[in-house]
Amino acid sequence: MAGFIIHSVLVTGANRGIGLELVKQFLGKSNPPEWVFATCRDPEGVQAQELQNLASRHPNLVIVVLEITDPASIKAAAVVVEEHLKGSGLNLLINNAGIVRQSTLETESLEGMSLVYTTNVTGPLLVTQAFLPLLKKAAQGSNQKGLSCSKAAIVNISSECGSIQNVYLWHIGQALSYRCSKAALNMLTKCQSLGYRDNGILSVAVHPGWVQTDMGNSAAFTAPMTVDVSVREILNMLTTLSEKDNGTFVDWEGKVLPW
Amino acid sequence: MAGFIIHSVLVTGANRGIGLELVKQFLGKSNPPEWVFATCRDPEGVQAQELQNLASRHPNLVIVVLEITDPASIKAAAVVVEEHLKGSGLNLLINNAGIVRQSTLETESLEGMSLVYTTNVTGPLLVTQAFLPLLKKAAQGSNQKGLSCSKAAIVNISSECGSIQNVYLWHIGQALSYRCSKAALNMLTKCQSLGYRDNGILSVAVHPGWVQTDMGNSAAFTAPMTVDVSVREILNMLTTLSEKDNGTFVDWEGKVLPW
Repeated sequence: MAGFIIHSVLVTGANRGIGLELVKQFLGKSNPPEWVFATCRDPEGVQAQELQNLASRHPNLVIVVLEITDPASIKAAAVVVEEHLKGSGLNLLINNAGIVRQSTLETESLEGMSLVYTTNVTGPLLVTQAFLPLLKKAAQGSNQKGLSCSKAAIVNISSECGSIQNVYLWHIGQALSYRCSKAALNMLTKCQSLGYRDNGILSVAVHPGWVQTDMGNSAAFTAPMTVDVSVREILNMLTTLSEKDNGTFVDWEGKVLPW
Repeated sequence: MAGFIIHSVLVTGANRGIGLELVKQFLGKSNPPEWVFATCRDPEGVQAQELQNLASRHPNLVIVVLEITDPASIKAAAVVVEEHLKGSGLNLLINNAGIVRQSTLETESLEGMSLVYTTNVTGPLLVTQAFLPLLKKAAQGSNQKGLSCSKAAIVNISSECGSIQNVYLWHIGQALSYRCSKAALNMLTKCQSLGYRDNGILSVAVHPGWVQTDMGNSAAFTAPMTVDVSVREILNMLTTLSEKDNGTFVDWEGKVLPW
């Protein structure tokens, strides 16, 4: 991480789980970003208390309200971030916000399919649309060749559960809407990698591992990896990404996963 | 096709394009199915005229109203089909209904993403849920070993545009919501193949080729394959599918495509 200097990063769904830990570890770096933007639905709510505590100690942390299923809220968040950046671009956009619903082939409903897809796929699409001008600005303002996360990048937090080849953890839960959404998010990532490569923006889908979060744990199972370890590995891995990784699907260690 | 005897088949989105041609060719077989169920949104409408003309000549064709985005309509259609089958099962369910919207990474909207996903992914999921008892009945009533389309099968009409590896025809159009939906449909197919294998039901995703239909043609391009050829090849290919093909993604000729 030592050589990994990022001027600005934005993390969605940052009030808990992997999102919160990403914010913590960015702030805890020896060379932290000048700006860490942490978005969540309700910054004043009890669920964002830890984020508020962090902000009271870190003036470079800006908490931004962003409801991932509301296009107007996403656009408003981009305006707030742009004002803070005062003419600079945004280097790293981490589309982390996501939900899971337990469901099976038999019990899955139209409502469940729609809510999970809107949150996990349409959300990252609309967030990227809104922050694209700032990502382009970061790429244009960089003197780095090729693609990298410290120049300009879109990191979509996906899941190996979205690997159609592997159908990871099927025996633990079918979570049908979640799997379909993550496969679609992987497609979105691939399309973004084709669409934004010439703008100097890297796009990648990341499987964070099976992590001990509210999402990862269930009544019957405890996830094998701590969120601390997962995020530390992810941040290390992000420093290694370059042009050749554009449009790939990698795990926390950088291992390429099949679609 | 000669040895391919199917008691009953249901095709969604059957009033035009590939769906209509599937119905025509099933009816035109030397050994046609006892029942061909053709669903569409508005059987009385002008868009279903050709289907109506066919029904007047083929008493084994039953036109059933089914609005793919309406769970109640789907359930009602299953009741109608069950009544016609008089205790028999349904052998072959072809989830063909689908839509495309031209869109790009920049122009895609929440409304577009939602409508295309509901139609192309949630629709096939809910249709399969509703007809599952009839598919299971067909499998149970069959004396065939293994899996096949003449025993009990779910055929989801997908597209190579949903191959994350290939991103087919990207230069022709980004059609982002469509690509994301077809990647998700492929995941649904894989999950169905795992969930229903033990019920004796085969599940497969099929890319019909780039076909001269309202969907396949555009202002700037004419698709290279006629709908007649595509459907003839698909029907031939379906006769060859067995247990080893369960959960795969194949084109009209049976060539396996990458996810």
